[in-house]
Amino acid sequence: MTHPWTPITGGVTAPEGFLAAAVTAGLKASGRPDLSLLLAPVGAVCAGSFTTSLVRAACVDLCAERLAAGGGHARAVLTNSGQANACTGERGLADSLRATAELAARLDLAPDEVLICSTGVIGVPIPMEVLVAGLDPLVAALGPTGGGAAAEAILTTDLVAKEIALEAQLGGRRLRIGGMAKGSGMIHPDMATMLGYLTCDAGVPADIWQDMVKRAVDRSFNAITVDGDTSTNDTYLAFAAGEPLGPEHFEALEAGLTAVSQHLARAIARDGEGATCLIEVRVEGSADDAGARAIARTVAGSSLVKCAVHGRDPNWGRIVAAAGRARVAFDPAAVALWLGDHQLMASGQPLPFDRPAASAYLKARAAGAYLVDDTVEIHLRVGEGPGSGSAWGCDLSDQYVRINADYTT
Amino acid sequence: MTHPWTPITGGVTAPEGFLAAAVTAGLKASGRPDLSLLLAPVGAVCAGSFTTSLVRAACVDLCAERLAAGGGHARAVLTNSGQANACTGERGLADSLRATAELAARLDLAPDEVLICSTGVIGVPIPMEVLVAGLDPLVAALGPTGGGAAAEAILTTDLVAKEIALEAQLGGRRLRIGGMAKGSGMIHPDMATMLGYLTCDAGVPADIWQDMVKRAVDRSFNAITVDGDTSTNDTYLAFAAGEPLGPEHFEALEAGLTAVSQHLARAIARDGEGATCLIEVRVEGSADDAGARAIARTVAGSSLVKCAVHGRDPNWGRIVAAAGRARVAFDPAAVALWLGDHQLMASGQPLPFDRPAASAYLKARAAGAYLVDDTVEIHLRVGEGPGSGSAWGCDLSDQYVRINADYTT
Repeated sequence: MTHPWTPITGGVTAPEGFLAAAVTAGLKASGRPDLSLLLAPVGAVCAGSFTTSLVRAACVDLCAERLAAGGGHARAVLTNSGQANACTGERGLADSLRATAELAARLDLAPDEVLICSTGVIGVPIPMEVLVAGLDPLVAALGPTGGGAAAEAILTTDLVAKEIALEAQLGGRRLRIGGMAKGSGMIHPDMATMLGYLTCDAGVPADIWQDMVKRAVDRSFNAITVDGDTSTNDTYLAFAAGEPLGPEHFEALEAGLTAVSQHLARAIARDGEGATCLIEVRVEGSADDAGARAIARTVAGSSLVKCAVHGRDPNWGRIVAAAGRARVAFDPAAVALWLGDHQLMASGQPLPFDRPAASAYLKARAAGAYLVDDTVEIHLRVGEGPGSGSAWGCDLSDQYVRINADYTT
Repeated sequence: MTHPWTPITGGVTAPEGFLAAAVTAGLKASGRPDLSLLLAPVGAVCAGSFTTSLVRAACVDLCAERLAAGGGHARAVLTNSGQANACTGERGLADSLRATAELAARLDLAPDEVLICSTGVIGVPIPMEVLVAGLDPLVAALGPTGGGAAAEAILTTDLVAKEIALEAQLGGRRLRIGGMAKGSGMIHPDMATMLGYLTCDAGVPADIWQDMVKRAVDRSFNAITVDGDTSTNDTYLAFAAGEPLGPEHFEALEAGLTAVSQHLARAIARDGEGATCLIEVRVEGSADDAGARAIARTVAGSSLVKCAVHGRDPNWGRIVAAAGRARVAFDPAAVALWLGDHQLMASGQPLPFDRPAASAYLKARAAGAYLVDDTVEIHLRVGEGPGSGSAWGCDLSDQYVRINADYTT
């Protein structure tokens, strides 16, 4: 997709008018920053996407209810890392209500304008006195360059912070979109959650913004898989506030929104527990885009494909077998498959290919260096239809098993 | 489920009139037996269940077509292990047709009465001259005690053969049901397939038999998961032939059919690649049985649950999080959870429990000994509804990753 957006620094505070802050309140045993605050300008619209799990934390219910009741408007979001506040019963909801009320009073906002996200251990309540004691210094720290600190404070088991900002000239003005996220395994040993936040300094009607964000999420966060597990707390909140942007620029705006969301989603997959590379699966030729995305996601999520990539084994049989179980109609006899530039199949049958070269392609990709090319590209054509789509995942290593089999006893 | 069935020996040849045989034709590099034959009595009905993958082998298409065209009748099934004959294009179908025609001539049957299953490497054609040369000795070896040999010859990467037979007194006569199966990972490095075969010496109308088998498969093979991957060749064939059985005994017959199918399915899960234990997930209290089975299967298939069990870690948070994403409605506040006899949750919230004792319960279960109790029981109550169901899986070990990441290059 070509679009006018170029990278800049600043994360979620790159867009004009957005403030952020972080402090160490003492919620994490590690002593790392654990309270993060993002404040949007007056009039901000906010679109939320939440975990589809039935078992979801009180803070997720609260966010969803407030956004629905407020017609897609919100001003602030507090994130506490250390305790997920999931499976904590009525106390969990009372704690979420109290945290947002205390913060709202300090920001001179109505409680309904304040959202909360929690990440950390499931089943353990938030030590509320510790959290509340952290709110004054948190509000005092709010500033227009707080994006980086805020991105650090939402992390739990992540190896690296994940943030990005883009800017473009649209309608004769400079627009910016910023984002930050956390998440590695969908649930580390009791550590819940993928969280994502996006900011944008364009004014967009709430309903149009909601639709744009939904499409961007389908093409990003809903297209990544680390281990197929969904957490109790997964949340993506996208804020937009600023001078109204003309509808003729909505398509370009959505392209930026999608690019930021995809960058964050890929960063989460790349940071998958025990992962040594990012896997990008691109599917084309299906009847529609949704079918292509479903096939791509099934391939990216296949344990056998993930193990083969980990072993740097160009195992085409596993890729087509995974595609075949995606519950999407296609003609197996039309399948063509590439691994990087190496074509492995045509017309549904294996081609002779340079196996050492294909294996070398895989071996050259490793996330350890992080800034080099660590992306294994799998490209599948399933027919002549107009549908296309991508998904991202990571390899499955014995390190993943060791991380997740750690004795807590 | 109480039923009148008790275990006997003999596998698929325990039921009267069924013959089986195996030979080493030379299809496997290992030099182990690789051709297996099962012959049913005149008039046998046969119900088939096949992989739901779009990418399926020619032999699967052939079996499905012949059973549909023949009104659910078949007499013989040939199994070759070594080559899966999947992704082999038109040649694959021609080879399946030729193999069954050659065998039909030797058995004096119509080709349409003969089925074929293939398992082994995907994308590699069957060396047909080797297979055909094995047919004469295979037919010569047919006998009423060939079940054990036949069960050995269908294996690929399995560690153990999987067979069972049950008998009961029904309607004043002795009835028997036998079964054999293969499969460990759904696809080992290019090694495809779960295969299962059931025999029964009761006469049952084809349509009723088909319905019975479908329900038994839903409660057995469709309720196991090793790694979530489905092969190109998965097939279950259930034969019944003998004196007609009165409809008043169909319920008891179906109980035996289900017991044999569940035994074979559990044996496949227990033999999962790298597995050290069997995981049995029992769910009750859902609106219907299908919902309970869906929840059970999601829990049994969760990588995080599998890793936790491998680490002998009583990690209840992962179990309820997996249940929550099964896309089945239930009230999270009603959830109760047991691990063996240890209750970990009530009313949707964690209970204090004896963590060392629960961990010891997990540690005592290991499939290495195979004959001791290696089953980790997870019991989840999700409400007061009438639905119940079970699923089976195995733990996820670093050994699984090593097996599946092996370099083929």
